[in-house]
Amino acid sequence: MDSSTIQNVRIAELSSRSGTSIPTIKYYLREGLLPPGTPTGRNQADYGEEHVRRLRLIRALIDVGGLSVAAARDVLAAVDVTEVPDHRLLGVASYALTRAPRRDRTDPVWRAARDEVAALVRAQGWHVMDESPNLDQVADGVAALRDLGQEDLLAPLPAYFRAAEQIATAEVEAVIRRGEPARMVEGVVVGTIIGEAIIDAIRRLAHEHVSAVVLGATPP
Amino acid sequence: MDSSTIQNVRIAELSSRSGTSIPTIKYYLREGLLPPGTPTGRNQADYGEEHVRRLRLIRALIDVGGLSVAAARDVLAAVDVTEVPDHRLLGVASYALTRAPRRDRTDPVWRAARDEVAALVRAQGWHVMDESPNLDQVADGVAALRDLGQEDLLAPLPAYFRAAEQIATAEVEAVIRRGEPARMVEGVVVGTIIGEAIIDAIRRLAHEHVSAVVLGATPP
Repeated sequence: MDSSTIQNVRIAELSSRSGTSIPTIKYYLREGLLPPGTPTGRNQADYGEEHVRRLRLIRALIDVGGLSVAAARDVLAAVDVTEVPDHRLLGVASYALTRAPRRDRTDPVWRAARDEVAALVRAQGWHVMDESPNLDQVADGVAALRDLGQEDLLAPLPAYFRAAEQIATAEVEAVIRRGEPARMVEGVVVGTIIGEAIIDAIRRLAHEHVSAVVLGATPP
Repeated sequence: MDSSTIQNVRIAELSSRSGTSIPTIKYYLREGLLPPGTPTGRNQADYGEEHVRRLRLIRALIDVGGLSVAAARDVLAAVDVTEVPDHRLLGVASYALTRAPRRDRTDPVWRAARDEVAALVRAQGWHVMDESPNLDQVADGVAALRDLGQEDLLAPLPAYFRAAEQIATAEVEAVIRRGEPARMVEGVVVGTIIGEAIIDAIRRLAHEHVSAVVLGATPP
């Protein structure tokens, strides 16, 4: 996948090849995120192509995905035992990115929103874990709109489900096309986080377009 | 729109009706976000229904939308001169929510991404301002994927445009249905921010579903 291959380089060259500082590399070695190199003497070791690739994945998990070192270690452990594309592997990477729900789960407004979202997901025919943290996140948003007295803004919810299925189909295809488990996990993390920013911005562009057309500022 | 109407209440009751503390109300009065009440004596004034409504809009702009006081003042000024639904009014509210682009605009990777995104928008037939900050945001994301060597994750871009148009059509309809300019602006701000969180979470749910089906963990 990488355009250049390296063999048996010292930590200084691993640093310049990967764009990761030497202290950061040493930290990842100590924390067990990066496997040790081949010892070549006292306090010296050689590193190979697999270290460059692993550093790239660690950077995706921690710098792009915002994962803690402990969460990154769990995802890397799943990568290391997976040889073929696997649904659970993508799930491990995806769930690691989930924020904790902001709401008290015993709040009746939130509980009602959670049940409603789960019913919408079933109506859509989606296969989703009952305890998925993503269901909690949707419920957070629905409950927030209710609290603010903006329930009418829930009208687009069915459009969200339809649009999300189209988006996810194209995205999962792009990730699976990579074939190699470590690159797929990298794709899940980077694609989820940066894709989110891209989709949010394209949605705002679409608001500009649709409101210009609907409110008659421009010909349709 | 509000279920109860009030007339001529003191600041303490305005506070309890609106759920906004008295010091915060006084701050908004000093900053000119909230118009003064009717004076009833030295250091006393009465407030009416329009103050409750205005406080609700200010809360949407500042607490939900994260706008600065200066940005909120600009949006409120646009609300105050608008009598009928107006495309520019929705644009003022929407642009006020835009973050500054993270990238140096002279960076060639970013410039190329910006041009490419503008071409995609034209190909889509969208009516969008050439200088729209939302184009900058999309270019930020595209350039970030290139920097990370994840260009293949741009394959879903056309799906993003199609999905965003469906979403935005349903959302703009819901906002226009409100009729009153102040309520429409409130809908733009709350709908953009909380809608974003809801859509992000539904997209992650769709990833769960699609990857379970594609990778064969469940029957389609």
